[in-house]
Amino acid sequence: MDMELWYTEKHTETTGITIKVTDCLLQEKSKYQQITILQTPHYGKILLLDGLVMLTERDEFVYHEMITHVPLLSHPNPQKVLIVGGGDGGSVREVLKHPEVEHIDLVEIDQMVIDKCREYFPTLTQGLSSPKVTIHIANGIQFVKNCRSDYDVIIVDSTDPIGPGEGLFTEAFYQDIHRALRDRGLLVAQSESPFVHENIISPMYRKLKNVFPVCKMYLAFIPTYPAGCWSFAWCSKGNLLSDRPDEKRYEKLQPKPRYYNPQVHRSSFSLPNFVEEMLPNGNSF
Amino acid sequence: MDMELWYTEKHTETTGITIKVTDCLLQEKSKYQQITILQTPHYGKILLLDGLVMLTERDEFVYHEMITHVPLLSHPNPQKVLIVGGGDGGSVREVLKHPEVEHIDLVEIDQMVIDKCREYFPTLTQGLSSPKVTIHIANGIQFVKNCRSDYDVIIVDSTDPIGPGEGLFTEAFYQDIHRALRDRGLLVAQSESPFVHENIISPMYRKLKNVFPVCKMYLAFIPTYPAGCWSFAWCSKGNLLSDRPDEKRYEKLQPKPRYYNPQVHRSSFSLPNFVEEMLPNGNSF
Repeated sequence: MDMELWYTEKHTETTGITIKVTDCLLQEKSKYQQITILQTPHYGKILLLDGLVMLTERDEFVYHEMITHVPLLSHPNPQKVLIVGGGDGGSVREVLKHPEVEHIDLVEIDQMVIDKCREYFPTLTQGLSSPKVTIHIANGIQFVKNCRSDYDVIIVDSTDPIGPGEGLFTEAFYQDIHRALRDRGLLVAQSESPFVHENIISPMYRKLKNVFPVCKMYLAFIPTYPAGCWSFAWCSKGNLLSDRPDEKRYEKLQPKPRYYNPQVHRSSFSLPNFVEEMLPNGNSF
Repeated sequence: MDMELWYTEKHTETTGITIKVTDCLLQEKSKYQQITILQTPHYGKILLLDGLVMLTERDEFVYHEMITHVPLLSHPNPQKVLIVGGGDGGSVREVLKHPEVEHIDLVEIDQMVIDKCREYFPTLTQGLSSPKVTIHIANGIQFVKNCRSDYDVIIVDSTDPIGPGEGLFTEAFYQDIHRALRDRGLLVAQSESPFVHENIISPMYRKLKNVFPVCKMYLAFIPTYPAGCWSFAWCSKGNLLSDRPDEKRYEKLQPKPRYYNPQVHRSSFSLPNFVEEMLPNGNSF
């Protein structure tokens, strides 16, 4: 009988998910982190960084649609977009569905993430070769420090605040992002799971609120992330509304999103009471 | 070193969750099913039926608030409520927060579920002793067959459609429920996870649609259920709206719900595109 191989990711000390693995396609250490790619029967290929699931072929559409279409359709005319992290290409793929976008800067610290994803995840990385995209292999913190009022939308598609992602959860970084945005600019950043990471979320939103006049949380169902519930911070310099997605531009997105639609967009900002309570002033600030 | 005991529940053949266990408090076979109660560090006590998580002390509030307050606050004056299943008492506890409710019939097939939950889950079962509650140890299908226009709200708080819960997913049962409801009556039934159970959901909603003129799905985040995403069917005889929760009655609920609020109520009916597509006519039927 063949060996049964199961990957188990602990989401807390005493809870986790477990996924049967048919093959370990890659396990390699880059300058920054351990990169692993597993083949699985249920989720297809899975990308792990430092042993944690970053994406699976089966459910990555939720994360990538929700981290991109929510800010892009909240903005009246997103021409220039910055993505910090996201070397897997999934966010770029979705941003490129918006014809208004003229240019995307992708700042990924780890060249090897891009190289290996190009090799193993062609359905995610196809957009990285677009003439609209410039890839910068650089530290996102340094990159943003040197930007001045350049971007309509900045997307922080980061890992958890441990390891290379740590500096992307500081107030100094949020101030640099604020400066890097145009007047009507928007920031969206992944912000962990309210069921598991209250200790990260509360300080993160306090810092965001110190920098941005409007800061809201929205939620999505992502089965392979802790608790199956993931949050995103939506921060504006002050003159955009989170609940007015542009329905006409949505109708033109091709191929049609599988998770996102304008109703889901508006609804994702409705927070359960226990989540409201971990934000400085609920979702009304 | 002490033994490390982990409970693993498979949600598909090749995926699941795993939870560290400090103690197996109960493992007993009733006439209908295997009843297990585990003590765990993260989720507190867990109730399993036939080896599947029914509830945990940590996250049961989501399920029980969402299966009760959504129908009860959609209804203008819910006086008489029937709960099919729900021997753990969680749904009764939430329904009793509504002062309009004069009487609750709870129909649980398995006396042992009630007895063991009274012993191990006092925070769930407290309401079962209320003078407003009548417990019927009976087959829910038989019970409903004999009802005529009796109830304002019927809640099907069932297990999966395997084992004792199977007959609760048939069109004949839905017809009996329709007959058991008053003219403005509402049915809410748990309806599995859209990320995992499309094969159950599609036929279930087709059957419901054959019986009820209005039938919609709503969603909630439940970390210990498959994919962390759970759905409920909301079915009305025709003259109520799903998106008009009574905000004044919500304000009076004591203690205040931890998940449910009127905004979450309305938003929970917004379905991702891939979920809309597994329903006979999306959420607009």
